[in-house]
Amino acid sequence: MMKMEKCLQRENDELWFAEIDRNNLKIEYRIKEIIYSETSPFQHILVLDSYDFGPMLVLDGAVQTTALDGYIYNEMITHIPLNIHPNPRNVLIIGGGDCGAAREAAKYPDIQRIDMVEIDEMVVKASKNYLKEVSGDLSDPKVNFIFDDGALYVKRKRDYLYDVIIVDSSDPVGPAAKLFELEFYKDLYNNLHEDGLIVCQSESPIFYPEMLVNMHRRLSTIFPVVKTYTATIPTYPGGLWTFTIGSKKYQEPNPEAFDKETRYVNKEIIKSCFSLPNFVKKLLNIE
Amino acid sequence: MMKMEKCLQRENDELWFAEIDRNNLKIEYRIKEIIYSETSPFQHILVLDSYDFGPMLVLDGAVQTTALDGYIYNEMITHIPLNIHPNPRNVLIIGGGDCGAAREAAKYPDIQRIDMVEIDEMVVKASKNYLKEVSGDLSDPKVNFIFDDGALYVKRKRDYLYDVIIVDSSDPVGPAAKLFELEFYKDLYNNLHEDGLIVCQSESPIFYPEMLVNMHRRLSTIFPVVKTYTATIPTYPGGLWTFTIGSKKYQEPNPEAFDKETRYVNKEIIKSCFSLPNFVKKLLNIE
Repeated sequence: MMKMEKCLQRENDELWFAEIDRNNLKIEYRIKEIIYSETSPFQHILVLDSYDFGPMLVLDGAVQTTALDGYIYNEMITHIPLNIHPNPRNVLIIGGGDCGAAREAAKYPDIQRIDMVEIDEMVVKASKNYLKEVSGDLSDPKVNFIFDDGALYVKRKRDYLYDVIIVDSSDPVGPAAKLFELEFYKDLYNNLHEDGLIVCQSESPIFYPEMLVNMHRRLSTIFPVVKTYTATIPTYPGGLWTFTIGSKKYQEPNPEAFDKETRYVNKEIIKSCFSLPNFVKKLLNIE
Repeated sequence: MMKMEKCLQRENDELWFAEIDRNNLKIEYRIKEIIYSETSPFQHILVLDSYDFGPMLVLDGAVQTTALDGYIYNEMITHIPLNIHPNPRNVLIIGGGDCGAAREAAKYPDIQRIDMVEIDEMVVKASKNYLKEVSGDLSDPKVNFIFDDGALYVKRKRDYLYDVIIVDSSDPVGPAAKLFELEFYKDLYNNLHEDGLIVCQSESPIFYPEMLVNMHRRLSTIFPVVKTYTATIPTYPGGLWTFTIGSKKYQEPNPEAFDKETRYVNKEIIKSCFSLPNFVKKLLNIE
C-alpha cells in the first residue's frame, strides 16, 4: 500500500497529487480539495477534487476515474458487449466500484438483473457519496450490490447463469491481480449461458502490450470468439485503451439497434471501435 | 520563451523533464540524457532521450513528438488527406519540422513534389540528426525544404497550385499562432487546385474544445466540405486528438486504395477515424 503523503504535496500554497504510474513517468494534478481519504481493508481510497478533471477516484495512488471523462470508459466497457449480445437479461459486473458500468447497464429495460460483485464496499460508498458524476448515486432496484471477492464469487455454484459478464477491474496489482488469471476466465465461462459473453479491460497497448497479448491468448484458449476493441481514455497514461471480449457464440455488433442516451458511444463508434491500428494487429497476430 | 532550467531538474541523481502543459496538470518524464539543446531565433529546441518514449523533440517546453509514438500523428495527418484526394501530385506541408509528415507523403510514387515550409531550420536539422525514428533522416529528392514563415509563404503569388496542403503546426502559441487564423485558411484555399483540400491538426476536444470548434467554424466559411477525424496520440495530454479537413470537392475516403506500409494507419482506420464520439458531434453541431 502506498504512503499517501508521498502522493499529495503542497508546493507554494498549491496542493498537487502525483500519480506515479511507472518508474519513469509522473503525472501531477493540481487539487482543490481532498474530499475523502480512508484506508479500507483492501486499499487506500481517495476522492480528490481536481482543477482539470473535477472529482476523481484514486485507489492506492492510481487514478481510476474522473468526473471529466469517467463516462468514456464506463460507456465503452458496458454498451459494446450489451450490443453484441442480442438479448441480455442477466448481467454480472465484477469490480466496477465506481458504479458507472452498472449505471449504464441499468439503461436497458430488458435487463432484469444486474449483480455487481465488488470486493470493497467503501469504494462504492465513496463513489455514491462523492462522485455522483460517475456513479449517478445509483439506486436502480435491478442492481444487486454484492460485496465479495469476484474471483471467489464466480467459483461458487449457483442455480442461475449470466448472459453478459463485465470485468471492470483495476490494474493487475493488489486486489485485482487474480482477475487477470486463466483460472478466473474459466470460471467466468462456467457462469455464462451457452450463448453468453464476457468483456475485460485489457490495458494500454502502448505501455502494457504484454497484458493485452496475454489476455487475448488466454481467452482464446477458452472462448471460440475473441475480439479486441479500443477507446481513448484521457486520464489513463497512453490514452489508447483496449477491451477484450470472449464470446461463446455472438461476435458481430448490431449498431442499428443502439438507442441509449450517451455522451461517447453511438452507432458509428460501436462499429468503428473494432478497427485496430496496425501495431495492435501485429501484437495480436491478426491478419 | 520558457526558462529551460525550470523544465529540467535533477532529483536524487535522476534527471526529469516536466511538461507544464496547463496550469493544473504536469507531466514529468525521466530522462537518460540531453541530446541537444539550442535556442533558435524562434524557440528553444531540446532533444531528450527519455526512458519511456525514447528520443523526443521539445519546443519551448512542450513535447512535440517522440520516437515511441511519433508515427501515429504523422501517419494520421498525412495518409488521410492523401487518401481522400484521388490523385495528389503536388503537396505542401506547412510546419512539420520533425519531417515525419514529409516522410509519409514521400511514400506515394505519383506525388511529384513535396514543398515543406518550416519556419525553423534548426528544428529540421535537430530532427534529422537526433530523431531519425521520426524523420527517417529524410533525403527524398521530391522534398523541397523551404525555410520560411508558412503564413507569409502562402500569401505570395506563384505560378503553381497544390492538390493537398498539410498544416502540421505546433500549438497556437509562439511561431504557430498565425496558422490558426481565418486569413491563413483563405490563403491556403487560394493555393489549392479547384479540387484541392487541406488538413490541419485541430487540438484536443477534451482540453481545448474551443480550438476545434473555432477551426471547424472558420473552415466552414471557406470550404464546401469540412470533416473532422480523430486519432489517439499517447504523448499529447488528453490522448484523443482531432484533425480537420477543408476540401473544395472530395469528401469520401477510399480505404480500398490504401496500400502503404505503415505502423498505425490501415484500411479500417481510414474508414473508422471519421466516427466521432457524441460529445465531439455535439461540439460541432453534427446531427
